[in-house]
Parts: sequence; C-alpha cells; structure tokens
Amino acid sequence: MTPKYQPADSMKSPRFAGVRTFARLPHVTTLESVDLAIIGVPFDTGGTYRVGARFGPESIRSASALLRPYNPALEVDVFDSISCIDFGDLDVVPGYLPEAHAQITEAAQPLFAADVVPIFLGGDHSVSLPLLRAAAAQHGPLALVHFDSHSDLWHGYYGGKDTHGTPFRRAVEEGLVDVDHSIQVGLRGSVYDAADARMTTEVGMELITGPELHAVGMAAATERIRARVEGAATYVTFDIDFVDPAFAPGTGTPEVGGFTGYESLQLVRGLRGLDIRSFDLVEVMPMYDPTGVTSLLAANLAHEFMALTALRS
Amino acid sequence: MTPKYQPADSMKSPRFAGVRTFARLPHVTTLESVDLAIIGVPFDTGGTYRVGARFGPESIRSASALLRPYNPALEVDVFDSISCIDFGDLDVVPGYLPEAHAQITEAAQPLFAADVVPIFLGGDHSVSLPLLRAAAAQHGPLALVHFDSHSDLWHGYYGGKDTHGTPFRRAVEEGLVDVDHSIQVGLRGSVYDAADARMTTEVGMELITGPELHAVGMAAATERIRARVEGAATYVTFDIDFVDPAFAPGTGTPEVGGFTGYESLQLVRGLRGLDIRSFDLVEVMPMYDPTGVTSLLAANLAHEFMALTALRS
Amino acid sequence: MTPKYQPADSMKSPRFAGVRTFARLPHVTTLESVDLAIIGVPFDTGGTYRVGARFGPESIRSASALLRPYNPALEVDVFDSISCIDFGDLDVVPGYLPEAHAQITEAAQPLFAADVVPIFLGGDHSVSLPLLRAAAAQHGPLALVHFDSHSDLWHGYYGGKDTHGTPFRRAVEEGLVDVDHSIQVGLRGSVYDAADARMTTEVGMELITGPELHAVGMAAATERIRARVEGAATYVTFDIDFVDPAFAPGTGTPEVGGFTGYESLQLVRGLRGLDIRSFDLVEVMPMYDPTGVTSLLAANLAHEFMALTALRS
Amino acid sequence: MTPKYQPADSMKSPRFAGVRTFARLPHVTTLESVDLAIIGVPFDTGGTYRVGARFGPESIRSASALLRPYNPALEVDVFDSISCIDFGDLDVVPGYLPEAHAQITEAAQPLFAADVVPIFLGGDHSVSLPLLRAAAAQHGPLALVHFDSHSDLWHGYYGGKDTHGTPFRRAVEEGLVDVDHSIQVGLRGSVYDAADARMTTEVGMELITGPELHAVGMAAATERIRARVEGAATYVTFDIDFVDPAFAPGTGTPEVGGFTGYESLQLVRGLRGLDIRSFDLVEVMPMYDPTGVTSLLAANLAHEFMALTALRS
Amino acid sequence: MTPKYQPADSMKSPRFAGVRTFARLPHVTTLESVDLAIIGVPFDTGGTYRVGARFGPESIRSASALLRPYNPALEVDVFDSISCIDFGDLDVVPGYLPEAHAQITEAAQPLFAADVVPIFLGGDHSVSLPLLRAAAAQHGPLALVHFDSHSDLWHGYYGGKDTHGTPFRRAVEEGLVDVDHSIQVGLRGSVYDAADARMTTEVGMELITGPELHAVGMAAATERIRARVEGAATYVTFDIDFVDPAFAPGTGTPEVGGFTGYESLQLVRGLRGLDIRSFDLVEVMPMYDPTGVTSLLAANLAHEFMALTALRS
Amino acid sequence: MTPKYQPADSMKSPRFAGVRTFARLPHVTTLESVDLAIIGVPFDTGGTYRVGARFGPESIRSASALLRPYNPALEVDVFDSISCIDFGDLDVVPGYLPEAHAQITEAAQPLFAADVVPIFLGGDHSVSLPLLRAAAAQHGPLALVHFDSHSDLWHGYYGGKDTHGTPFRRAVEEGLVDVDHSIQVGLRGSVYDAADARMTTEVGMELITGPELHAVGMAAATERIRARVEGAATYVTFDIDFVDPAFAPGTGTPEVGGFTGYESLQLVRGLRGLDIRSFDLVEVMPMYDPTGVTSLLAANLAHEFMALTALRS
Repeated sequence: MTPKYQPADSMKSPRFAGVRTFARLPHVTTLESVDLAIIGVPFDTGGTYRVGARFGPESIRSASALLRPYNPALEVDVFDSISCIDFGDLDVVPGYLPEAHAQITEAAQPLFAADVVPIFLGGDHSVSLPLLRAAAAQHGPLALVHFDSHSDLWHGYYGGKDTHGTPFRRAVEEGLVDVDHSIQVGLRGSVYDAADARMTTEVGMELITGPELHAVGMAAATERIRARVEGAATYVTFDIDFVDPAFAPGTGTPEVGGFTGYESLQLVRGLRGLDIRSFDLVEVMPMYDPTGVTSLLAANLAHEFMALTALRS
Repeated sequence: MTPKYQPADSMKSPRFAGVRTFARLPHVTTLESVDLAIIGVPFDTGGTYRVGARFGPESIRSASALLRPYNPALEVDVFDSISCIDFGDLDVVPGYLPEAHAQITEAAQPLFAADVVPIFLGGDHSVSLPLLRAAAAQHGPLALVHFDSHSDLWHGYYGGKDTHGTPFRRAVEEGLVDVDHSIQVGLRGSVYDAADARMTTEVGMELITGPELHAVGMAAATERIRARVEGAATYVTFDIDFVDPAFAPGTGTPEVGGFTGYESLQLVRGLRGLDIRSFDLVEVMPMYDPTGVTSLLAANLAHEFMALTALRS
Repeated sequence: MTPKYQPADSMKSPRFAGVRTFARLPHVTTLESVDLAIIGVPFDTGGTYRVGARFGPESIRSASALLRPYNPALEVDVFDSISCIDFGDLDVVPGYLPEAHAQITEAAQPLFAADVVPIFLGGDHSVSLPLLRAAAAQHGPLALVHFDSHSDLWHGYYGGKDTHGTPFRRAVEEGLVDVDHSIQVGLRGSVYDAADARMTTEVGMELITGPELHAVGMAAATERIRARVEGAATYVTFDIDFVDPAFAPGTGTPEVGGFTGYESLQLVRGLRGLDIRSFDLVEVMPMYDPTGVTSLLAANLAHEFMALTALRS
Repeated sequence: MTPKYQPADSMKSPRFAGVRTFARLPHVTTLESVDLAIIGVPFDTGGTYRVGARFGPESIRSASALLRPYNPALEVDVFDSISCIDFGDLDVVPGYLPEAHAQITEAAQPLFAADVVPIFLGGDHSVSLPLLRAAAAQHGPLALVHFDSHSDLWHGYYGGKDTHGTPFRRAVEEGLVDVDHSIQVGLRGSVYDAADARMTTEVGMELITGPELHAVGMAAATERIRARVEGAATYVTFDIDFVDPAFAPGTGTPEVGGFTGYESLQLVRGLRGLDIRSFDLVEVMPMYDPTGVTSLLAANLAHEFMALTALRS
Repeated sequence: MTPKYQPADSMKSPRFAGVRTFARLPHVTTLESVDLAIIGVPFDTGGTYRVGARFGPESIRSASALLRPYNPALEVDVFDSISCIDFGDLDVVPGYLPEAHAQITEAAQPLFAADVVPIFLGGDHSVSLPLLRAAAAQHGPLALVHFDSHSDLWHGYYGGKDTHGTPFRRAVEEGLVDVDHSIQVGLRGSVYDAADARMTTEVGMELITGPELHAVGMAAATERIRARVEGAATYVTFDIDFVDPAFAPGTGTPEVGGFTGYESLQLVRGLRGLDIRSFDLVEVMPMYDPTGVTSLLAANLAHEFMALTALRS
Repeated sequence: MTPKYQPADSMKSPRFAGVRTFARLPHVTTLESVDLAIIGVPFDTGGTYRVGARFGPESIRSASALLRPYNPALEVDVFDSISCIDFGDLDVVPGYLPEAHAQITEAAQPLFAADVVPIFLGGDHSVSLPLLRAAAAQHGPLALVHFDSHSDLWHGYYGGKDTHGTPFRRAVEEGLVDVDHSIQVGLRGSVYDAADARMTTEVGMELITGPELHAVGMAAATERIRARVEGAATYVTFDIDFVDPAFAPGTGTPEVGGFTGYESLQLVRGLRGLDIRSFDLVEVMPMYDPTGVTSLLAANLAHEFMALTALRS
C-alpha cells in the first residue's frame, strides 16, 4: 500500500520550487497515518560559545530539497515504505532554558505516544534532554548512541546551570539513559582537565574517542556500537561537530581532527536493523556555513535516519 | 470580520520557528476567502548575465519572517484588513522559456479570475510577460508602473529570442500594456546605443530616468507617476535592480548610481489609493547577497504592496 | 598634562599589530587616572530573532585599529585630552538573563562610582537595563537619547519575560529614566499593532520616527534632541539597527529604510556639549557582517562618543 | 624544439599580473602549431537545481594563475613538451539549449579536425553532449571515462527535454559512446528509484559506485578503469561534483560522501598513457565557492590533463 | 571613421563569455591607432593596513563585463568615438617599492609619449607617484583632481619611507603637481593630529573636506573643482575609499561617513570638458568585497573616465 | 608549583569574553617566570601571490578562545605544567623586508636568551629567516622540521631578492640550519622546473614529498622525521599550506592534494620528546577563510606545540 504522505513530484515541480519543507514532504501537524516525522527544535539558548542553531532547521530544510526518494546504499525507497511528514517546528521561548525545555518535552510526547519515529533537528544540544524526557516517558530508559566531539556530560556552571554541555549528565541523573547499553563516539579536542576525559566511562557508558575511531576505522567501530546497543530501545543523537570542520564548519564549538562526511554516513548506515525509537541532529548553524556543506550533510544524515526507519517497516 | 487566514502568532511561536512561508502566513492552495496571495515564480532561464533568481522566492520568504502585521507608515494593520495567503510557487520547466511561460500564464489565470490580488516573487524579469498575459486576459490592457534600471524593451537577440530584457517589448506588441498610462522609473547605466535610451518614449510610455529621479526627488516623481496611472487598472513591476547595489547587491545585472531602500519605500507608498490589480518583484538572487539585505528589502517591498492592497479593502 | 594612558604609537607599531584592544588603548582593569573606559558587555541571550551579539565587542575592537587620535570634525585630539582605557569585558552567564543582568549591574557600578565615563559595547539591547540600573544608582534618573529602529518598550512575552525588546519598559517602570527629558529617534518598520506605534509617547518620551527624521533632516532633529535633553544628566544608547542595513547589515533585527553612516555621525556630533554620563552601542553581530562595515561604523561611533567626552574635559 | 606558445614568465611578470588566461598562456584563436587548447564553454541552461556554471571558465582561469610549468608527480614539463593555448570561450545562446548545443558542436569541430587535444571547461554537464558530437564526428565512437556523482543518463523530463542530467543518455542513443569500453566512477547519493541506480550497467557501461570506490581504493579502481578503456580512443569527462563538497562546494548538485582532492588527482594521474582525445571539466560554480577551493582544484585537474597529454607527445 | 579597436559584440558573444579584459576590449600591447588604454598596476606593497589591491585590476575587469558602449548620462557612444584597448598590466616586483616604482614609471612613459590617454587601475595609492613621474615627464606639472578620504600627504615613517600614504607629498616635493590648480576632495575620518588636517592647504592645494562636501552638495563642489583646474593639464586620481564603505567596502583603509555611488558619478561627470591627460583609480581589494559592489562601481567610474575622454575627441 | 601565568577561568568568564589573547592567556611583555610565549609576527611583504598574513596573528588568537587546558591526546595539562604568556606582536615595517627582518631578529633574540620556548605566529614564511637568525644566535645551527607544500628554497628573483619563497635558501647559506638533521615534509604541486623538485635533497636535507606521505602514512613518516632530528636542537616550522585547501583555505599559495587536519595533528604529536627550541606557524590569511577553519586549525596546532613543550618540562 502506498504511504499516505508523499513528497512533491520533482518531475512536475522542480526541486528548487515551493515552500521549503524537509525533502519536499507535506507539512502536516496531525499524526494519523504517519510513520516518521521531521520536527525542528529551534532552541539555542544553551550555547556557550557561538549561538544561532535556532536557524538550523530552516537551513537543513533548504538543503534537503536535493534529496531524492531512493537510497542506493541502503537499497530502500524511503517514501514507498513509510509515510513521512514535516511536522514543522516546536514552539520555544528563546532565552529561557527551563521554560523552553518544558515546552519541548510536552510537545514531543504526543509524537512518541503516537508511535511515530521522530527525527528532531536542533537547535543546540541542550534539546536532547527534554527530548529524552519525552522519549523515556514512553519507552523507558533508552540506549544512547551518541556521535559528538564532546561528551556533554559536564555538571554545569554557576551553580549547576544547564547548557548544551550538560544534557547527558542530567539525563543520566534522571535515569533516562540505559548507560549499560550506551556509547559515545568521536570525542576529541582539549578539555578542562584530566577528569573531563573520563566522564563517559565514569557514568558507565562505553567510549570510542576520536583518535581511537581514526585508529580502528569505521567498520570495527560499527561492530562495537552494534554490540553495545543491539536489542535495546535506542535513541540516536548526532552532534554535527562530530564531523571535521572542513566538512561541517557551520557549528558552535568546532573541533579539528574529526571525521569526513563519508565516515559519518558509514557509521549511520552501520546502525541498520537496530531498534531506534528516535533521532536528533543538532548544532547546525548556517551563519557559520557560507558554503552550505554543513546543512547539506545534515540533511543527508537525516535522510539516512529515514532509510534506517524505512528498512524496519 | 476577522479575515480567514492569519499569520502565525509571534507571541506564541517565535519568528524564527516554523516552515518558511511569506510573513508566516498559512500555505494555502485554494482561493476561497482569499484577498491577496503571495506566489513564487522561480524561473530564471531568461537571465543574460548572472542567473539564480529561481532561489529568489525562498530567500524572500526567509527574510519575511521579520515582518509584523502593522504598517505604521501607511497606518494599516494588513492582516486585520484582508485575508492573505502564501500560495506557494508556480511550477516551471527550467531551461525552457516558451514552455515555462505558458505554464506560468496558465497557472496565474485562476488567481486573477478569483479576484485575488497577487504579489508574484520572481524569478527573472522575463516572468512579467506571462503574468501580464494572465492579468490582461482578466483585466484588459493594464497601466504599467515599472521600477527598474533597464527598460526591458529590447527586441531580443539571435532572431528575436526572448530573455529578461524583452518582456515589455512583447507585452507592448501584444497589447497587454496600456502605454498611455504607463511609466518607467529609474532607468540608468550604459546601454548599447543611443536608440536604446529612447525605447521607452518610442513605445509611448513615460520615462523618469535615474538621473532625473535623483534630480527631482521622490515626491515630485510620485506626483508624475500618480498623474500618469490614476484611474487605470494597474500592474506594478519592481525589478530589484532599481535599487542601488549597496542596498541590493543580490541581483543579476546591477547598475550603480541607484536609489536607497528608503527612496524605494517612498515611491511604493506613493502608490496609495491607485487601482493596482497585480504586483511583481523580480531579479532577487540570494547567492549574490551574502549580507541578506536584498532579500530583506524585497520582503519589505512586498509588505508595502500588501499594505497598499489592504488600504483599498 | 599628558593623560596617563595612551594608545600604541602607530608610527612604531603598525596598526594591524598587537593584541586587539579598542583603538589600541592599553587594557587596564583599574580605574585610577582614568577618564573614559571602553567596556564590552558580551551578552546576547535577550535576542528574539538572530543572536550572536556576544561577539560584538571583539569585532568592534578589531575594526577600531583603524582609528587615529585626532577628530577633525569635532576638532579635538581625544587622547591628548582625556585618559582612556580598554577595561575589557564584563563577565556574564550566557543563557541566563536575570543572573547576567545582575552581574552586569554589579560590575558596572564601580565605573560610575569612579566618575569614569563608560562606553559600553554590547551585546544585545537588553544590557541597557542593567547598565541603566548602575548608572541611575549613581546619577539618579537619566535623560535618555535613544537611537534605534525599535522602541524596545515592549512589555515582554510569555508572562512578561525580558528580552532585548523590553529594557526601556522596565527602565521606565523602575524610574531609571527621566522620561520628560528623553527622546527616541529613528523608529520605523512594521510593528505588531497600532498601539505599539504609540508606546514612546504613552510613556512620556518624545519621538522622532524614522520617516519624520528623513523628512526633517539631521539638523532639525539635532535641535529637537538638544532641546529635549539639554541640562539633564544623560545616557545615550545607540542600537546599530538605527542605521540602514546597507550601512549596517550585521545586526539582529534589521529594518530597511534607515539612515546612512554620515547621518548617524551628524546626529552624534550634534550631542556636543550635552551632559552625557554614559554611552552604550549595541546589537552588532559580526557573523552577519561579511564586509565588516557594521563593526567599522560602530567603532567610529564609539570614537565620536570619546570625542564628545574629550570636549567636556 | 621549443613549443611555439609559452605561458608568461613568472620571474618577470608576477603571477597575479595580467589578463587572466588559463595558466597564463597566450590567448590565441588560431590552431596552427597548437597541440593543446583550453576552451571555455560557458553554458548553464541545462542546470536543474543551482545554476551559474557560465562563470566557471572565468573562475578556473583565475585560479590557474598559480599553476607552474613542471608537474613533479608525473615528471613532465608541460610547456616544454607541447604547445598550449587558451582559445577563449565558445559563443553560446544562454537560455536556449538546442541552439547553444548546435553552436558548441559547430565551434568545437575545427579543434578536433586540427588534431588539437582540447580541454573544455564548462558550463554545466549538458555541454558534454555537443562536445561528444564534435569529437565523434572526427574520431568515431569514444570510450568514456566519466567521473561524477550522477550517471547523467536520465531520459529527460516534460517530454524528454534535455538537461545536464541527460547528456550521456543522448550520447549513447546517438552512438557517440563506445559503451563496451566506457566506465562511470563515483556515483552516489539518493536517486529517484531503484531503476535509476541500474542505468549505467543497463546501457552497457561499467560502474564503480562511490561506496565501491571508497571500499576498493584508488589504485584498484585505476586498474579497472585502465582495463576497460585501454587501447580505445577516449573522452574523459569530469564533473566536479565527483569530489566531496568539503573539497568542491562550488557546484550545482553537490553530493556528500565523495572523494578528496588527492584521490581525484590519483585517479586522473592513473590515466597516464591512455589514448585520450578530449577532456571536459564541468559544473564549477564560483558563486557557491567563497573559499575558492573548487576552482583551484578544477584548475589543477586541468593541469593534470595537460600533463597526460604532454606525456604522450 | 570607426575606431580601430572595438569591444566584443554582446549580441553574438554573451557578456559572461571570453577572457576577461576591460569592457570586453581587445587586449593589445601596441599603441598605434589607440586613443585610450586601460592599464592594470597590480602593486600593493605600499599598503599600511589591509593589503591585496594587486588583485584590483582582475576584479575590476571582471565587473566591467557588464558595461555597454553608450553612456546616456554623458550622451556619448564611447567606442564609436575613440579607439580603446586593454593594455594588460604593468610588471612589478612585489615587496620592493622603490624597484617597482621605477618599473612603473618606465613602463608608463611610452603611453604618455604616444599621446594615449591612460586609465590606470591600481594597486594601492603609492602607484600614483611613479605614474605622475611619467605623466609630468611628458606634460610638465599637472593639476591634480584628487578624490579620497585621506590626503596621502604624509611625510613617511621610519625615516621617511614611502607608502600609500605619501605619494602626493613626494609628488609635490618633486614638482610633479601644479599645486595652484590642484584640489583634494572628500577628506574625512580621524587623523594623527591637528597638523595632519591642514596638510592639503599647507602645500598649496585647495581642499573640500568630506563634511564640507556633504554640506555644499555635488553641484557646488563641481563648480569649485572646475574653477580650480580649468585650463590646466590635469591628472585625476580616484581612491575608491572616497566612497562610503556601504558602497565600496572592498578597500584597505575604509572611512565611514562617505559618499554614495551616484554622488561619485556626479562629481566625475562634472569634469566634462576639462583637459584630463591621465586617470588612476586605486585601492580596490576584492577579497574584502564579497558582494562585488566595489569592483562594479570602480568599473563604472572607469567607464565614465572613458566617456570624458571620448567627449573631447 | 602552579605556574605564574594562567589563562582566564572559563567557568567565571565565558570563552567569548575579553580582549583576545592566545588561549585567553595574560598579555605579558616581560619574560621572568615564563616558560613559553606566543608571539605574533604580522609581516607579509614577502608574499608573491596573495597577501594579508599580517592579520594571521589576530585571527589565530580569535580562534584560540575555544582551546581548553587539558590535551587528552598527549595527556598533559598544559597550563599546570608550564607558565605561558601571550607576548603580543613584534613590531615590523610593512613594505620593507630587509628592515622588518632586522627588527624581527632583534626583537626575537631576548626570547631565546631568556630560555623561553617561543611559538611564533606569522606572517608570511619569510619571517622564518630572521627568526632562525635569532634562534641560531642562541642555539647554533638547528635541525629543521619543515611542514609545507613548498620547499621555500628558491634563490630569489630580480637579482636574488628575498620573498616568502626563499627563507630556507638563505638560512642554509648562512649556516643557520643543520641540514644533516633536517627534513622537509609534504612538498607537492607544480614547480617551475625539474631542478626545483630536487632542491631539498641538493642542499642536504631529507625530503618526504606529499605523494610519498600519502603513500607511507603518518606513522611511518613520523618514524623518519624522528630518526632524522632526534638528539638535535630543533626548530619546527609549519606552513599552513601543508594542509589541504579543504581544511585550510585561508592561505596565500594553496596547493590541492594535501593533508587533513587530523593527519597534521598526528605528525605534530609524533614530535613528542624531541628537543624543540622554537616553533613557527605561518601563512594564515583570514580574509580567504570565510569559514574560519584555517585559523581554528592553526590555533589547535599551536596548542599541540604548547603540549609538546609542557611534556618536556
């Protein structure tokens, strides 16, 4: 049966035409007959260095006009398999993190309740915390597959205040993450002290640092990731600064020595078959991306997330 | 009575959130209860120098997120007065001017038939020709108020082929324009020969050249424009290269020695009360607009067009 | 007597050399023998559309390397007249407006207590509120000369929350502003409703809208400003979006139809002789300023503020 | 014997000086004593997404000022071996694909007739079709070595209209390509359906997809390419979007997950000794290339093409 | 009689095609049958702040592709009246000012000897000195019409070393300038001390400062310029930083508070009929000009210089 | 014992705040209790193609705000181990290479005399010559580890004049380099003739060309470098054009086919334990680096240099 919602037909309407929705999908705000939804979360008050990820959803949508239905690497026609929509953006209160986080959790819950697989486009990484709250409310603690150059396990500053560097500390404290089946991949760059470099393992998650990932390669890393999370309900979070700044300059706290676009695709494709309940993709900042490559890569990563979901349908 | 369609409430949903429609209006493709529609016409195959105006509608929509409902200069609350929608973009065949022009005329006709005031966002200036065909089919020959640095009255090249330099030549030949009530404003820059500089008057339209406009000022020019077109059903076409490149660098054939953003606003506001049946705004090219000022000005000009329409409701 | 602090000698050390302080002044954090201080306030959590003014002080300092000591328009050698320093930036908690505002007030008070004339470089416009709190604590209610395209007198949203659109509402409510001697200049662009357009006069301040300012010209406006504030202890606040986006694209909520760099200089020079106790210059965002003209103009405006202060020494 | 035409001497005239011709070669429009010619083909009406490749030849020429005569990787002094010229650009009718294609074929034929090895700089990929027509008119069907992220074997749209996605479909249909000795390398990214992914092999060409190329590496791929085309008169076409967007952002339909500049050089150098009669290099768009890396890489690839030709002299 | 050299015919070869020469003129290095020559002088070692004007000639040539033959403001068909060529660039030794200056003088002399009117495109302003040496060798001391925001009459630094701030000091000392018929126009911005502001008048030239020029307007200033230089053999030098940074950001020492593109055109057109023997246009830096407006304005100013020359033929 | 000088505490003062010094270190111009100093050398008159490296120190300092104290790859807390300062920039005479070189040598000598390990930030590569003069005056001839795409061993032009292509020719001639323990790494791209490609080995240094480095990999190359220089007092010079333009576009003579950021880090980390007395990092040009990735990588490489020094303390 053909899925209810389909993207615009690029043979009739050229890809550069029309109001920009993700992959030219219909903008729909109801959840009936929906298998997968793209949702923008334009909140960036958690940023501690550069800011501007509130414009991430717009720029990723813009770049996604180039995406076509069939994914030859994963051999799946996404839109023939599942019904996909662009749900639009969640409302947020800019400048007020606790209030915005509460809004995000509340607005995300119906998506999980409706058994839709959501792909959230940030926004800064602080949004993973309210999203995990919503996800765990439905699914219980989730295995985390976390691609990033930072652990985002800091305790906070100025009396424990939350930022985009703290979401997973809070998530672990609140029991939202099944640490025994969780893994952080790609961490690198300078940190504040030696203890910072041990935070991942101290909370009980597995760690593949950036240098380790370079050393072992994507195939071996994929095996470790799969071994860690297989069988568990999983939440995938992808901070675009996992990628090297040459491939993704448009982000807030770039770290050199990272990974290529293709290596990123390989790792995501390696998640095939896992029980992934939700994805987020964060920290895209178009004003630092004059070549547009960051948004283009982000759009493609989201497209791979769609393919992973379609393969399980 | 409150108009049927309203923009998103920026007190609830911040202006940077959501799928980008013009001024945060609903994207609607039916015409019932609609007074005014924004329509993108992303066709740019007529460009003889730089190209890329196919991305003009997207970038103008993006910049229009900053627009608010009340226009203090014209003292009108646009969205309280008239029901406005973003109709999306017309489909076009890129690379094939005659075919695309036929599509545009056909798709534009229902808008005129429904008595909606359309504001078309180009696209290159060649699109004014198929739009005038649709407009004249409904309204008969139209008075033209044409802001531009070029007359676009060239005969064509290579055996009379159409480009963005020829639409008004064809429109005059086809009787779509009521030349006795038409006026071109702002022409300047080098031309091919002395005859080129006389084309406006030779077809019977009035001319205020760029240097004249600088000399007489906006108020006097407004009087001349009003005297020329008052009482006639009018089509307003605004080529963004009327504006000086400092204020609108993102265009295809920029001409120095032009006008400021404020002068542009003054002239448009000066059209208050005239019987304007259709507007177009063309030649915005975001890839030549790294500061975004061109799209921002274009969005504001379209907002003034909306206010002019609201004032007549 | 030669002032204690002097900028680097550009005949010995070229202007492009050295750690970037404002106008190549020494970076000093004590206030003895100091007449005037440049202070960065890199806080931008109040931004409701674009963000990034936290990088404003850095970019204005960078552009200020071009400034030389003598101001021929005001005929004063700034650094021969008064002892000037770059005080560095105030510490702030990004992402937490109330906390950061408290920090700013506390850190600014010693400057006022020491009778130093401070020039604050924002940051978003929300920082004017904590700065006015510090200023009024020392000087009592202050006459406000406010250049902007927005009144920033909004009441707040989501239950009255503060943003960069609310500082002067709060300042008036708290009695920090002597409204009878205050004036807002340059307001323009769309607003939410007709009431918004009346907020300035309803709180008791004088208003010269953007269109009025275009109509009357800088000289007449200067007379009105002087008549309004003469004799009162004055706080000057300059939002760079007063300037037209062609001259200052690098800002958060640009409004077309604004003023040139020279008109801005004229208005500031027109404040000569007034009893100005403090200046701020806000909303410069370098990531939206690829040509650098915004920061360059901001640096020059701050240089004019210095000259105004030097003339009173 | 010293070749007749030589580039400007960079020891006398610095490389940044002079009218920009390719590699500072003389601009010559006759073909006597010429072994190799660089020819711009500034036609981009075939573009279905971004456009602007008409400015590709200009920007590649500009970047080529950095090229020096000796190629250490291939150990050949290009300009000591063969007489090279910059032939300028072919005239085209922008906006009219069939007419422009006819012009291109007609203008290219004398080059092939004169036994000059041409290196054509596009323009969009549609220009390969008229160039193949000219080449095949002289040489008969040619083996094709095609580097690209797309097969460009689409059938056309809107009744089979040609675009930059169709040249090789037409070329195969017209018998211009010796499919049995042809190969496409680097294809990747989403396509419209599963059939699209099989087009290369269905027309009889060999295929190395992007993921395969990543997996087997450049050395093994080189062997496959050589085995396929060795002995046949060959046409090499290089779409710059073969390269990853991090290395070549300035193109019209970028696809992530591509190849580095060095990998591209390796593959081209691997063509050493083959019987190559013509080269083209297409889809460079400088307005999407703010860092200039795309044009620089394109200029270097053309320089490698020159070295391959010089080695066979 | 038709002039010998003519630009490419844009009806046959589109303006974006071909090797970039100024206004599509032939690149000719002989002077027979030549009335006017465009010559690049890509030397920028004299720059004391930003550098990069060595790429000015290239970018001005690129922008000049938009220029057409007929100038409607001055009512002259340039290329029907005089024979114009692009002479290419003068060779220089980058990094070595005295040597390069000697080269420039030597290479420029034949142009003056052949009675060609040269339009030199810098390069930094230091090149005016060797050009004046060549000009005065032929014509004797020349009246100077100097548009700039700086007097460039500084004595030098580090023991009198020359830079782009000193050419007219040297020229006056060497008797190359007829100071009694010379005038500097547009000076503004901060200077090192009060004496700096008096240098123009102290050497005997007339001065219209930037603020004066704003106050009196272009028409009155034109009268003063004409009165000063009329009857004298004249050299016109135009530093692009005369123009406001909003209209010409791409320069080395921009000064805010400047003039518009149109005001610049007015002043240049006001030179009609004067006995101008040579023009230079300096300090264009494309790497600081992402919108391209600086080079476009420079190309147009040079086009006006051509028209002034054509009118006297 | 805690080192005397420490960077600002990012838990109190956010990283985007404050006057930009390298890694937020104090700006100190005395050498007591100093182990390592960052020094800018903003001289770029030696550039033969693009210029502007005089702004390199500023942009590297700006990017360095992101650096944190602990280096997890080398497992060292830099600022706990050694006392580091930002010494500011050396004064130079722009436009006058011999004079500036003399200034640089003179100003650098006290740093070597005080046994401080200096990290010099260029500036163009010509500055390595005066720096080597100062270094060798203290330490005698130094082993050179030279990362670059060019040998910079050219003899000079126009009678042997120095440029950024000649420093190591002069250094070898003057006996500043211990060629038997020196090595050049990464050379690639076209050169003027076959002899150019042999210059490294002809002066007695070891060579790993770019293609060789790609072939053998970073680990094997590291062994060769270590074997070559181990035991000798060493000077490390890193031209950012060693890196591929995708990772470092902001440089003057970029060469495609280079190395990634991570490969660069690997090679630098491989120098662990060697007796390095001085580092320089040159040819960063921010005006060609719109994404900022070049300066960010440069800042990180300097941070690795600091870690190498800290490990030996």
